[in-house]
Amino acid sequence: MENPEVPPTSEMRFVARARTRWSDEDNQGVLNNAVYMTLLEEGRHAYFGARGALELNRFPFLLAQTQIRFLRPGRGGAEVEIEVRTMRLGKSSFEQAYRVRSVDSREVWAEARALCVIYDPATGASRPMPGDFRAAIAAFEGL
Amino acid sequence: MENPEVPPTSEMRFVARARTRWSDEDNQGVLNNAVYMTLLEEGRHAYFGARGALELNRFPFLLAQTQIRFLRPGRGGAEVEIEVRTMRLGKSSFEQAYRVRSVDSREVWAEARALCVIYDPATGASRPMPGDFRAAIAAFEGL
Amino acid sequence: MENPEVPPTSEMRFVARARTRWSDEDNQGVLNNAVYMTLLEEGRHAYFGARGALELNRFPFLLAQTQIRFLRPGRGGAEVEIEVRTMRLGKSSFEQAYRVRSVDSREVWAEARALCVIYDPATGASRPMPGDFRAAIAAFEGL
Amino acid sequence: MENPEVPPTSEMRFVARARTRWSDEDNQGVLNNAVYMTLLEEGRHAYFGARGALELNRFPFLLAQTQIRFLRPGRGGAEVEIEVRTMRLGKSSFEQAYRVRSVDSREVWAEARALCVIYDPATGASRPMPGDFRAAIAAFEGL
Repeated sequence: MENPEVPPTSEMRFVARARTRWSDEDNQGVLNNAVYMTLLEEGRHAYFGARGALELNRFPFLLAQTQIRFLRPGRGGAEVEIEVRTMRLGKSSFEQAYRVRSVDSREVWAEARALCVIYDPATGASRPMPGDFRAAIAAFEGL
Repeated sequence: MENPEVPPTSEMRFVARARTRWSDEDNQGVLNNAVYMTLLEEGRHAYFGARGALELNRFPFLLAQTQIRFLRPGRGGAEVEIEVRTMRLGKSSFEQAYRVRSVDSREVWAEARALCVIYDPATGASRPMPGDFRAAIAAFEGL
Repeated sequence: MENPEVPPTSEMRFVARARTRWSDEDNQGVLNNAVYMTLLEEGRHAYFGARGALELNRFPFLLAQTQIRFLRPGRGGAEVEIEVRTMRLGKSSFEQAYRVRSVDSREVWAEARALCVIYDPATGASRPMPGDFRAAIAAFEGL
Repeated sequence: MENPEVPPTSEMRFVARARTRWSDEDNQGVLNNAVYMTLLEEGRHAYFGARGALELNRFPFLLAQTQIRFLRPGRGGAEVEIEVRTMRLGKSSFEQAYRVRSVDSREVWAEARALCVIYDPATGASRPMPGDFRAAIAAFEGL
Protein backbone atom coordinates (compact mmCIF):
# COMPACT_ATOMS: atom_id res chain seq x y z
CA MET A 1 0.00 0.00 0.00
CA GLU A 2 1.49 3.32 -1.10
CA ASN A 3 1.56 6.17 1.39
CA PRO A 4 -0.84 9.03 0.67
CA GLU A 5 1.00 11.96 -0.91
CA VAL A 6 0.75 14.92 1.43
CA PRO A 7 2.72 18.16 0.94
CA PRO A 8 4.96 19.48 3.73
CA THR A 9 3.36 21.66 6.38
CA SER A 10 4.91 24.77 4.84
CA GLU A 11 2.76 24.26 1.74
CA MET A 12 -0.54 23.71 3.53
CA ARG A 13 -2.51 26.94 3.26
CA PHE A 14 -5.25 26.22 5.78
CA VAL A 15 -5.13 24.93 9.35
CA ALA A 16 -8.28 24.05 11.28
CA ARG A 17 -8.46 23.43 15.01
CA ALA A 18 -10.35 20.63 16.70
CA ARG A 19 -10.39 18.98 20.09
CA THR A 20 -10.48 15.25 20.72
CA ARG A 21 -12.79 13.92 23.41
CA TRP A 22 -12.21 11.55 26.26
CA SER A 23 -14.66 9.09 24.71
CA ASP A 24 -12.73 9.16 21.42
CA GLU A 25 -10.31 6.71 23.04
CA ASP A 26 -11.24 3.07 22.57
CA ASN A 27 -10.46 0.13 24.83
CA GLN A 28 -6.84 0.13 23.62
CA GLY A 29 -6.47 3.56 25.25
CA VAL A 30 -5.78 5.40 21.97
CA LEU A 31 -7.83 7.55 19.63
CA ASN A 32 -10.14 5.19 17.75
CA ASN A 33 -9.34 5.12 14.03
CA ALA A 34 -12.83 6.24 13.02
CA VAL A 35 -12.26 9.51 14.89
CA TYR A 36 -9.62 10.51 12.34
CA MET A 37 -12.29 10.42 9.65
CA THR A 38 -14.30 12.79 11.81
CA LEU A 39 -11.28 15.07 12.33
CA LEU A 40 -10.67 15.21 8.57
CA GLU A 41 -14.33 16.08 8.13
CA GLU A 42 -13.94 18.85 10.70
CA GLY A 43 -10.98 20.13 8.69
CA ARG A 44 -13.02 20.06 5.47
CA HIS A 45 -15.94 21.77 7.17
CA ALA A 46 -13.75 24.63 8.48
CA TYR A 47 -11.98 24.93 5.13
CA PHE A 48 -15.16 25.24 3.05
CA GLY A 49 -16.92 27.31 5.68
CA ALA A 50 -14.03 29.82 5.48
CA ARG A 51 -14.47 29.88 1.67
CA GLY A 52 -18.22 30.52 2.01
CA ALA A 53 -18.95 27.24 0.25
CA LEU A 54 -21.32 25.57 2.74
CA GLU A 55 -25.05 26.08 2.46
CA LEU A 56 -27.15 25.56 5.58
CA ASN A 57 -24.23 23.76 7.20
CA ARG A 58 -24.30 21.04 4.51
CA PHE A 59 -21.50 19.99 2.18
CA PRO A 60 -22.24 20.42 -1.56
CA PHE A 61 -20.13 17.31 -2.27
CA LEU A 62 -19.73 13.70 -1.17
CA LEU A 63 -16.60 11.89 -0.10
CA ALA A 64 -15.86 9.37 -2.85
CA GLN A 65 -12.58 7.99 -1.62
CA THR A 66 -10.13 8.50 1.22
CA GLN A 67 -6.77 7.17 2.25
CA ILE A 68 -5.44 7.62 5.78
CA ARG A 69 -2.01 6.78 7.15
CA PHE A 70 -1.87 6.52 10.94
CA LEU A 71 1.55 7.63 12.16
CA ARG A 72 1.34 7.92 15.95
CA PRO A 73 -1.32 6.84 18.47
CA GLY A 74 -3.61 9.79 19.20
CA ARG A 75 -5.13 10.73 22.54
CA GLY A 76 -8.46 12.03 23.79
CA GLY A 77 -8.72 15.46 25.39
CA ALA A 78 -6.16 16.96 23.04
CA GLU A 79 -6.05 20.05 20.85
CA VAL A 80 -5.24 19.11 17.26
CA GLU A 81 -4.44 21.03 14.12
CA ILE A 82 -5.79 19.77 10.83
CA GLU A 83 -3.81 21.08 7.87
CA VAL A 84 -5.87 21.10 4.65
CA ARG A 85 -4.85 21.73 1.06
CA THR A 86 -6.82 21.27 -2.15
CA MET A 87 -4.46 19.57 -4.57
CA ARG A 88 -6.53 19.35 -7.72
CA LEU A 89 -9.80 20.71 -9.11
CA GLY A 90 -11.49 18.46 -11.69
CA LYS A 91 -14.65 18.87 -13.73
CA SER A 92 -16.96 17.58 -11.00
CA SER A 93 -14.50 16.44 -8.35
CA PHE A 94 -11.51 17.62 -6.35
CA GLU A 95 -8.73 16.14 -4.23
CA GLN A 96 -7.43 17.28 -0.87
CA ALA A 97 -4.49 16.44 1.37
CA TYR A 98 -4.57 16.58 5.18
CA ARG A 99 -2.27 16.33 8.18
CA VAL A 100 -3.48 15.85 11.75
CA ARG A 101 -1.08 17.10 14.39
CA SER A 102 -1.15 17.32 18.17
CA VAL A 103 -0.84 20.96 19.20
CA ASP A 104 0.96 20.10 22.43
CA SER A 105 3.51 17.57 21.24
CA ARG A 106 3.69 18.73 17.59
CA GLU A 107 3.58 15.01 16.73
CA VAL A 108 1.91 14.13 13.44
CA TRP A 109 -0.82 11.58 14.17
CA ALA A 110 -2.05 11.03 10.62
CA GLU A 111 -1.76 12.08 6.99
CA ALA A 112 -4.54 11.63 4.47
CA ARG A 113 -5.93 12.27 1.04
CA ALA A 114 -9.54 12.53 -0.07
CA LEU A 115 -11.39 12.58 -3.37
CA CYS A 116 -14.70 14.44 -3.25
CA VAL A 117 -17.45 14.62 -5.86
CA ILE A 118 -19.81 17.56 -6.32
CA TYR A 119 -23.38 16.32 -6.21
CA ASP A 120 -26.94 17.47 -6.45
CA PRO A 121 -28.66 16.76 -3.10
CA ALA A 122 -32.05 16.56 -4.83
CA THR A 123 -31.08 13.72 -7.17
CA GLY A 124 -27.94 12.35 -5.50
CA ALA A 125 -26.15 12.44 -8.88
CA SER A 126 -22.78 14.07 -9.49
CA ARG A 127 -22.79 17.37 -11.35
CA PRO A 128 -20.23 19.86 -12.68
CA MET A 129 -18.46 21.99 -10.11
CA PRO A 130 -20.22 25.38 -9.83
CA GLY A 131 -18.14 28.26 -11.15
CA ASP A 132 -18.09 30.23 -7.91
CA PHE A 133 -17.01 27.17 -5.93
CA ARG A 134 -14.14 26.58 -8.37
CA ALA A 135 -13.13 30.22 -8.39
CA ALA A 136 -13.09 30.49 -4.59
CA ILE A 137 -10.88 27.41 -4.16
CA ALA A 138 -8.59 28.19 -7.10
CA ALA A 139 -7.98 31.71 -5.81
CA PHE A 140 -7.21 30.51 -2.29
CA GLU A 141 -4.88 27.72 -3.36
CA GLY A 142 -3.31 29.47 -6.34
CA LEU A 143 -4.43 26.65 -8.62
CA MET B 1 -6.43 8.38 -6.61
CA GLU B 2 -6.33 4.70 -7.52
CA ASN B 3 -9.25 2.53 -6.41
CA PRO B 4 -8.46 0.05 -3.61
CA GLU B 5 -7.95 -3.45 -5.01
CA VAL B 6 -10.65 -5.69 -3.60
CA PRO B 7 -11.27 -9.25 -4.84
CA PRO B 8 -14.74 -10.26 -6.08
CA THR B 9 -17.24 -11.46 -3.49
CA SER B 10 -16.72 -15.07 -4.58
CA GLU B 11 -13.13 -14.91 -3.30
CA MET B 12 -13.92 -13.36 0.08
CA ARG B 13 -13.73 -16.17 2.64
CA PHE B 14 -15.30 -14.40 5.59
CA VAL B 15 -18.49 -12.38 5.94
CA ALA B 16 -19.38 -10.53 9.15
CA ARG B 17 -22.76 -9.04 9.96
CA ALA B 18 -23.38 -5.65 11.48
CA ARG B 19 -26.28 -3.26 11.84
CA THR B 20 -26.19 0.45 11.22
CA ARG B 21 -27.92 2.77 13.67
CA TRP B 22 -30.36 5.58 13.17
CA SER B 23 -27.81 8.02 14.60
CA ASP B 24 -25.18 6.84 12.08
CA GLU B 25 -26.90 9.12 9.58
CA ASP B 26 -25.57 12.67 9.53
CA ASN B 27 -27.38 15.86 8.58
CA GLN B 28 -27.14 14.91 4.90
CA GLY B 29 -29.40 11.95 5.66
CA VAL B 30 -26.80 9.31 4.75
CA LEU B 31 -24.45 7.08 6.70
CA ASN B 32 -21.65 9.33 7.93
CA ASN B 33 -18.31 8.38 6.38
CA ALA B 34 -16.66 7.72 9.73
CA VAL B 35 -19.16 4.92 10.34
CA TYR B 36 -17.60 2.90 7.53
CA MET B 37 -14.35 2.85 9.47
CA THR B 38 -16.31 1.44 12.39
CA LEU B 39 -17.99 -1.16 10.15
CA LEU B 40 -14.59 -2.27 8.81
CA GLU B 41 -13.41 -2.55 12.40
CA GLU B 42 -16.45 -4.68 13.21
CA GLY B 43 -15.52 -6.90 10.26
CA ARG B 44 -11.93 -7.21 11.49
CA HIS B 45 -13.12 -7.92 15.02
CA ALA B 46 -15.43 -10.72 13.88
CA TYR B 47 -12.74 -12.13 11.56
CA PHE B 48 -10.02 -12.32 14.20
CA GLY B 49 -12.45 -13.38 16.90
CA ALA B 50 -13.43 -16.33 14.71
CA ARG B 51 -9.72 -17.17 14.32
CA GLY B 52 -9.19 -17.05 18.11
CA ALA B 53 -6.74 -14.19 17.67
CA LEU B 54 -8.19 -11.61 20.07
CA GLU B 55 -7.08 -11.49 23.68
CA LEU B 56 -9.42 -9.90 26.23
CA ASN B 57 -11.38 -8.31 23.38
CA ARG B 58 -8.30 -6.33 22.25
CA PHE B 59 -6.62 -6.37 18.87
CA PRO B 60 -2.96 -7.51 18.86
CA PHE B 61 -2.27 -5.08 16.00
CA LEU B 62 -2.76 -1.44 15.01
CA LEU B 63 -4.24 -0.02 11.85
CA ALA B 64 -1.36 1.63 10.00
CA GLN B 65 -3.13 2.64 6.82
CA THR B 66 -6.52 2.37 5.22
CA GLN B 67 -8.13 3.27 1.93
CA ILE B 68 -11.91 3.40 1.50
CA ARG B 69 -13.93 3.92 -1.65
CA PHE B 70 -17.53 5.01 -1.07
CA LEU B 71 -19.76 3.62 -3.78
CA ARG B 72 -23.34 4.25 -2.71
CA PRO B 73 -24.87 6.32 0.10
CA GLY B 74 -25.51 4.08 3.10
CA ARG B 75 -28.48 4.21 5.47
CA GLY B 76 -29.04 3.88 9.19
CA GLY B 77 -31.13 1.03 10.57
CA ALA B 78 -29.81 -1.44 7.99
CA GLU B 79 -28.31 -4.91 8.13
CA VAL B 80 -24.93 -4.99 6.41
CA GLU B 81 -22.50 -7.68 5.41
CA ILE B 82 -18.80 -6.99 5.70
CA GLU B 83 -16.72 -9.28 3.49
CA VAL B 84 -13.16 -9.68 4.77
CA ARG B 85 -10.11 -11.28 3.20
CA THR B 86 -6.47 -11.24 4.28
CA MET B 87 -4.46 -10.58 1.14
CA ARG B 88 -0.89 -10.71 2.39
CA LEU B 89 1.01 -11.76 5.51
CA GLY B 90 4.29 -9.90 6.07
CA LYS B 91 6.96 -10.20 8.72
CA SER B 92 5.19 -7.91 11.20
CA SER B 93 2.26 -6.66 9.15
CA PHE B 94 -0.62 -7.86 6.99
CA GLU B 95 -3.08 -6.46 4.47
CA GLN B 96 -6.82 -7.00 4.22
CA ALA B 97 -9.55 -6.22 1.69
CA TYR B 98 -13.17 -5.46 2.61
CA ARG B 99 -16.55 -4.93 1.01
CA VAL B 100 -19.57 -3.45 2.81
CA ARG B 101 -22.91 -4.46 1.37
CA SER B 102 -26.51 -3.79 2.28
CA VAL B 103 -28.23 -7.10 3.05
CA ASP B 104 -31.60 -5.85 1.83
CA SER B 105 -30.67 -4.18 -1.44
CA ARG B 106 -27.45 -6.15 -2.10
CA GLU B 107 -25.93 -2.77 -3.04
CA VAL B 108 -22.24 -2.39 -2.36
CA TRP B 109 -21.77 0.72 -0.20
CA ALA B 110 -17.98 0.65 0.09
CA GLU B 111 -14.79 -1.24 -0.71
CA ALA B 112 -11.62 -0.89 1.30
CA ARG B 113 -8.11 -2.04 2.05
CA ALA B 114 -6.18 -1.89 5.31
CA LEU B 115 -2.58 -2.37 6.37
CA CYS B 116 -2.20 -3.53 9.97
CA VAL B 117 0.96 -3.80 12.07
CA ILE B 118 1.47 -6.30 14.89
CA TYR B 119 2.50 -4.44 18.02
CA ASP B 120 3.43 -4.96 21.63
CA PRO B 121 0.82 -3.21 23.80
CA ALA B 122 3.36 -2.82 26.61
CA THR B 123 5.84 -0.81 24.55
CA GLY B 124 3.71 0.31 21.60
CA ALA B 125 6.46 -0.86 19.22
CA SER B 126 5.87 -3.16 16.26
CA ARG B 127 7.03 -6.74 16.61
CA PRO B 128 7.23 -9.90 14.48
CA MET B 129 3.93 -11.65 13.82
CA PRO B 130 3.49 -14.51 16.34
CA GLY B 131 3.70 -17.95 14.75
CA ASP B 132 0.26 -19.11 15.84
CA PHE B 133 -1.36 -15.92 14.52
CA ARG B 134 0.33 -16.41 11.14
CA ALA B 135 -0.56 -20.09 11.02
CA ALA B 136 -4.23 -19.47 11.83
CA ILE B 137 -4.64 -16.83 9.13
CA ALA B 138 -2.57 -18.65 6.52
CA ALA B 139 -4.59 -21.83 7.01
CA PHE B 140 -7.91 -20.03 6.76
CA GLU B 141 -6.99 -18.01 3.67
CA GLY B 142 -4.88 -20.64 1.93
CA LEU B 143 -1.90 -18.28 1.86
CA MET C 1 -31.69 10.96 42.84
CA GLU C 2 -34.76 8.75 42.51
CA ASN C 3 -34.51 5.65 40.34
CA PRO C 4 -36.45 5.81 37.07
CA GLU C 5 -39.72 3.87 37.35
CA VAL C 6 -39.60 1.00 34.88
CA PRO C 7 -42.20 -1.80 34.80
CA PRO C 8 -41.11 -5.46 35.08
CA THR C 9 -40.08 -7.22 31.87
CA SER C 10 -43.39 -9.12 31.83
CA GLU C 11 -45.24 -5.83 31.28
CA MET C 12 -43.03 -4.52 28.48
CA ARG C 13 -44.90 -5.08 25.22
CA PHE C 14 -42.10 -4.41 22.76
CA VAL C 15 -38.52 -5.69 22.58
CA ALA C 16 -36.03 -4.35 20.03
CA ARG C 17 -32.70 -5.93 19.19
CA ALA C 18 -29.43 -4.10 18.75
CA ARG C 19 -25.75 -4.95 18.71
CA THR C 20 -23.01 -3.08 20.50
CA ARG C 21 -19.75 -2.39 18.67
CA TRP C 22 -16.16 -2.90 19.64
CA SER C 23 -15.59 0.85 19.47
CA ASP C 24 -18.50 1.45 21.87
CA GLU C 25 -16.09 0.54 24.66
CA ASP C 26 -14.14 3.48 26.04
CA ASN C 27 -10.71 3.50 27.65
CA GLN C 28 -12.18 2.01 30.84
CA GLY C 29 -12.99 -1.11 28.82
CA VAL C 30 -16.77 -0.81 29.25
CA LEU C 31 -19.61 0.45 27.09
CA ASN C 32 -19.37 4.24 27.10
CA ASN C 33 -22.39 5.83 28.80
CA ALA C 34 -23.37 7.82 25.72
CA VAL C 35 -23.92 4.55 23.85
CA TYR C 36 -26.91 3.78 26.09
CA MET C 37 -28.61 6.90 24.78
CA THR C 38 -28.05 5.53 21.29
CA LEU C 39 -29.42 2.12 22.29
CA LEU C 40 -32.55 3.73 23.74
CA GLU C 41 -32.92 5.65 20.48
CA GLU C 42 -32.61 2.37 18.56
CA GLY C 43 -35.37 0.96 20.74
CA ARG C 44 -37.57 3.99 20.08
CA HIS C 45 -36.86 3.80 16.35
CA ALA C 46 -37.84 0.12 16.18
CA TYR C 47 -40.92 0.72 18.33
CA PHE C 48 -42.29 3.57 16.24
CA GLY C 49 -41.22 1.96 12.97
CA ALA C 50 -43.28 -1.10 13.94
CA ARG C 51 -46.25 1.24 14.64
CA GLY C 52 -45.86 2.89 11.22
CA ALA C 53 -45.18 6.22 12.92
CA LEU C 54 -41.89 7.24 11.27
CA GLU C 55 -41.90 9.32 8.09
CA LEU C 56 -38.83 9.17 5.87
CA ASN C 57 -36.87 7.59 8.73
CA ARG C 58 -37.38 10.70 10.89
CA PHE C 59 -38.97 10.92 14.32
CA PRO C 60 -42.07 13.17 14.56
CA PHE C 61 -41.06 14.10 18.10
CA LEU C 62 -38.09 15.37 20.10
CA LEU C 63 -36.59 13.99 23.27
CA ALA C 64 -37.36 16.53 25.99
CA GLN C 65 -36.01 14.68 28.99
CA THR C 66 -34.40 11.37 29.85
CA GLN C 67 -33.25 9.57 32.97
CA ILE C 68 -30.93 6.58 32.79
CA ARG C 69 -29.82 4.26 35.58
CA PHE C 70 -26.70 2.24 34.79
CA LEU C 71 -26.87 -1.11 36.54
CA ARG C 72 -24.03 -3.24 35.15
CA PRO C 73 -21.02 -2.41 32.96
CA GLY C 74 -21.91 -3.16 29.33
CA ARG C 75 -19.61 -4.65 26.70
CA GLY C 76 -18.93 -4.10 23.01
CA GLY C 77 -19.68 -6.82 20.49
CA ALA C 78 -22.81 -7.94 22.33
CA GLU C 79 -26.40 -8.59 21.33
CA VAL C 80 -28.79 -6.56 23.47
CA GLU C 81 -32.52 -6.44 23.93
CA ILE C 82 -34.17 -3.08 24.48
CA GLU C 83 -37.57 -3.40 26.14
CA VAL C 84 -39.85 -0.43 25.38
CA ARG C 85 -43.20 0.57 26.83
CA THR C 86 -45.19 3.77 26.42
CA MET C 87 -46.40 4.68 29.89
CA ARG C 88 -48.47 7.78 29.27
CA LEU C 89 -49.93 9.70 26.32
CA GLY C 90 -50.40 13.45 26.93
CA LYS C 91 -51.81 16.21 24.77
CA SER C 92 -48.57 16.84 22.88
CA SER C 93 -46.13 14.59 24.72
CA PHE C 94 -45.68 11.01 25.90
CA GLU C 95 -43.49 9.05 28.30
CA GLN C 96 -41.70 5.77 27.76
CA ALA C 97 -39.83 3.27 29.93
CA TYR C 98 -36.89 1.14 28.74
CA ARG C 99 -34.70 -1.72 29.87
CA VAL C 100 -31.42 -2.69 28.18
CA ARG C 101 -30.42 -6.29 28.67
CA SER C 102 -27.56 -8.45 27.45
CA VAL C 103 -28.97 -11.34 25.40
CA ASP C 104 -26.14 -13.68 26.40
CA SER C 105 -25.93 -13.09 30.14
CA ARG C 106 -29.54 -11.85 30.63
CA GLU C 107 -27.98 -9.15 32.84
CA VAL C 108 -29.81 -5.83 32.91
CA TRP C 109 -27.33 -3.12 31.96
CA ALA C 110 -29.62 -0.11 32.26
CA GLU C 111 -33.15 1.10 32.92
CA ALA C 112 -34.48 4.40 31.67
CA ARG C 113 -37.39 6.77 31.18
CA ALA C 114 -37.91 9.37 28.48
CA LEU C 115 -40.30 12.25 27.91
CA CYS C 116 -40.87 13.08 24.25
CA VAL C 117 -42.66 16.05 22.71
CA ILE C 118 -44.46 16.00 19.36
CA TYR C 119 -43.14 18.80 17.18
CA ASP C 120 -43.51 20.38 13.79
CA PRO C 121 -40.21 19.99 11.90
CA ALA C 122 -41.01 23.08 9.80
CA THR C 123 -41.28 25.44 12.77
CA GLY C 124 -39.60 23.46 15.55
CA ALA C 125 -42.57 24.20 17.83
CA SER C 126 -44.48 21.56 19.79
CA ARG C 127 -47.91 20.63 18.48
CA PRO C 128 -50.82 18.40 19.53
CA MET C 129 -50.29 14.66 19.05
CA PRO C 130 -51.85 13.59 15.73
CA GLY C 131 -54.92 11.38 16.17
CA ASP C 132 -53.55 8.41 14.21
CA PHE C 133 -50.30 8.47 16.21
CA ARG C 134 -52.26 8.45 19.46
CA ALA C 135 -54.61 5.73 18.27
CA ALA C 136 -51.76 3.46 17.11
CA ILE C 137 -49.89 3.72 20.41
CA ALA C 138 -52.99 3.50 22.61
CA ALA C 139 -54.16 0.36 20.80
CA PHE C 140 -50.77 -1.34 21.10
CA GLU C 141 -50.27 -0.50 24.77
CA GLY C 142 -53.87 -0.85 25.89
CA LEU C 143 -53.86 2.73 27.17
CA MET D 1 -41.01 13.49 35.05
CA GLU D 2 -39.51 16.10 37.37
CA ASN D 3 -36.96 18.51 35.96
CA PRO D 4 -33.38 17.95 37.16
CA GLU D 5 -32.46 20.46 39.87
CA VAL D 6 -29.62 22.62 38.58
CA PRO D 7 -28.39 25.77 40.39
CA PRO D 8 -28.26 29.10 38.55
CA THR D 9 -25.15 29.88 36.50
CA SER D 10 -23.93 32.26 39.20
CA GLU D 11 -23.52 29.32 41.58
CA MET D 12 -21.66 27.03 39.19
CA ARG D 13 -17.98 27.15 40.15
CA PHE D 14 -16.49 25.45 37.13
CA VAL D 15 -17.01 25.98 33.40
CA ALA D 16 -15.46 23.65 30.81
CA ARG D 17 -15.25 24.37 27.10
CA ALA D 18 -16.00 21.90 24.32
CA ARG D 19 -16.75 22.06 20.63
CA THR D 20 -19.47 20.17 18.84
CA ARG D 21 -18.69 18.50 15.52
CA TRP D 22 -20.44 18.59 12.19
CA SER D 23 -21.11 14.85 12.48
CA ASP D 24 -22.76 15.36 15.88
CA GLU D 25 -25.86 16.43 13.98
CA ASP D 26 -28.20 13.59 13.10
CA ASN D 27 -30.61 13.32 10.18
CA GLN D 28 -32.98 15.76 11.91
CA GLY D 29 -30.29 18.42 11.54
CA VAL D 30 -29.81 18.92 15.28
CA LEU D 31 -27.26 17.74 17.82
CA ASN D 32 -28.01 14.07 18.46
CA ASN D 33 -29.14 13.48 22.05
CA ALA D 34 -26.32 11.04 22.78
CA VAL D 35 -23.80 13.84 22.17
CA TYR D 36 -25.03 15.63 25.30
CA MET D 37 -23.92 12.65 27.35
CA THR D 38 -20.49 13.06 25.76
CA LEU D 39 -20.48 16.81 26.49
CA LEU D 40 -21.35 16.16 30.15
CA GLU D 41 -18.52 13.63 30.24
CA GLU D 42 -16.17 16.26 28.79
CA GLY D 43 -17.30 18.62 31.54
CA ARG D 44 -16.64 15.97 34.22
CA HIS D 45 -13.26 15.16 32.70
CA ALA D 46 -12.17 18.82 32.73
CA TYR D 47 -13.53 19.30 36.26
CA PHE D 48 -11.71 16.34 37.77
CA GLY D 49 -8.59 16.93 35.68
CA ALA D 50 -8.42 20.45 37.14
CA ARG D 51 -8.75 18.92 40.65
CA GLY D 52 -5.90 16.46 39.93
CA ALA D 53 -8.29 13.56 40.44
CA LEU D 54 -7.75 11.60 37.19
CA GLU D 55 -5.12 8.89 37.01
CA LEU D 56 -3.74 7.98 33.59
CA ASN D 57 -6.68 9.77 31.96
CA ARG D 58 -9.19 7.41 33.62
CA PHE D 59 -12.07 8.27 35.91
CA PRO D 60 -11.90 6.74 39.42
CA PHE D 61 -15.69 6.48 39.43
CA LEU D 62 -18.59 5.20 37.32
CA LEU D 63 -21.72 6.99 36.25
CA ALA D 64 -24.58 5.33 38.13
CA GLN D 65 -27.44 7.54 37.07
CA THR D 66 -28.06 10.60 34.97
CA GLN D 67 -30.99 12.84 34.12
CA ILE D 68 -30.87 15.24 31.18
CA ARG D 69 -33.38 17.88 30.17
CA PHE D 70 -33.08 19.07 26.58
CA LEU D 71 -34.10 22.72 26.34
CA ARG D 72 -33.11 23.91 22.86
CA PRO D 73 -31.95 22.07 19.73
CA GLY D 74 -28.14 22.10 19.62
CA ARG D 75 -25.95 22.50 16.56
CA GLY D 76 -22.72 20.99 15.27
CA GLY D 77 -19.64 23.14 14.82
CA ALA D 78 -20.39 25.21 17.90
CA GLU D 79 -18.40 26.27 20.96
CA VAL D 80 -20.19 25.24 24.14
CA GLU D 81 -19.68 25.90 27.81
CA ILE D 82 -20.39 23.13 30.28
CA GLU D 83 -21.04 24.42 33.78
CA VAL D 84 -20.29 21.84 36.47
CA ARG D 85 -20.99 21.83 40.19
CA THR D 86 -20.67 19.03 42.73
CA MET D 87 -23.82 19.18 44.81
CA ARG D 88 -23.25 16.45 47.37
CA LEU D 89 -20.42 14.20 48.58
CA GLY D 90 -21.56 10.84 49.99
CA LYS D 91 -19.65 7.96 51.52
CA SER D 92 -18.81 6.34 48.19
CA SER D 93 -20.78 8.47 45.75
CA PHE D 94 -21.36 12.08 44.75
CA GLU D 95 -23.85 14.10 42.73
CA GLN D 96 -23.21 16.79 40.16
CA ALA D 97 -25.29 19.35 38.27
CA TYR D 98 -24.51 20.57 34.73
CA ARG D 99 -25.63 23.19 32.23
CA VAL D 100 -24.69 23.11 28.53
CA ARG D 101 -24.76 26.50 26.85
CA SER D 102 -23.93 27.76 23.38
CA VAL D 103 -21.11 30.30 23.62
CA ASP D 104 -22.35 32.26 20.61
CA SER D 105 -26.07 32.50 21.33
CA ARG D 106 -25.84 32.09 25.15
CA GLU D 107 -28.83 29.74 24.75
CA VAL D 108 -29.03 26.91 27.27
CA TRP D 109 -29.24 23.64 25.35
CA ALA D 110 -29.51 21.26 28.29
CA GLU D 111 -29.43 20.90 32.06
CA ALA D 112 -28.51 17.70 33.82
CA ARG D 113 -27.71 15.85 37.02
CA ALA D 114 -25.50 12.84 37.55
CA LEU D 115 -24.88 10.39 40.35
CA CYS D 116 -21.38 8.84 40.30
CA VAL D 117 -20.01 5.98 42.37
CA ILE D 118 -16.35 5.59 43.36
CA TYR D 119 -15.14 2.16 42.30
CA ASP D 120 -12.10 -0.06 42.31
CA PRO D 121 -11.08 -0.73 38.69
CA ALA D 122 -9.45 -4.03 39.71
CA THR D 123 -12.62 -5.55 41.13
CA GLY D 124 -15.33 -3.32 39.66
CA ALA D 125 -16.87 -2.95 43.14
CA SER D 126 -17.76 0.37 44.74
CA ARG D 127 -15.48 1.57 47.52
CA PRO D 128 -15.33 4.48 49.97
CA MET D 129 -14.34 7.83 48.52
CA PRO D 130 -10.57 8.38 49.05
CA GLY D 131 -9.80 11.15 51.54
CA ASP D 132 -7.77 13.28 49.16
CA PHE D 133 -10.50 13.10 46.50
CA ARG D 134 -13.10 14.23 49.05
CA ALA D 135 -10.86 16.98 50.38
CA ALA D 136 -10.09 18.36 46.91
CA ILE D 137 -13.74 18.55 45.90
CA ALA D 138 -15.00 19.80 49.25
CA ALA D 139 -12.42 22.61 49.26
CA PHE D 140 -13.25 23.68 45.72
CA GLU D 141 -17.01 23.64 46.21
CA GLY D 142 -17.08 24.89 49.78
CA LEU D 143 -18.97 21.77 50.89
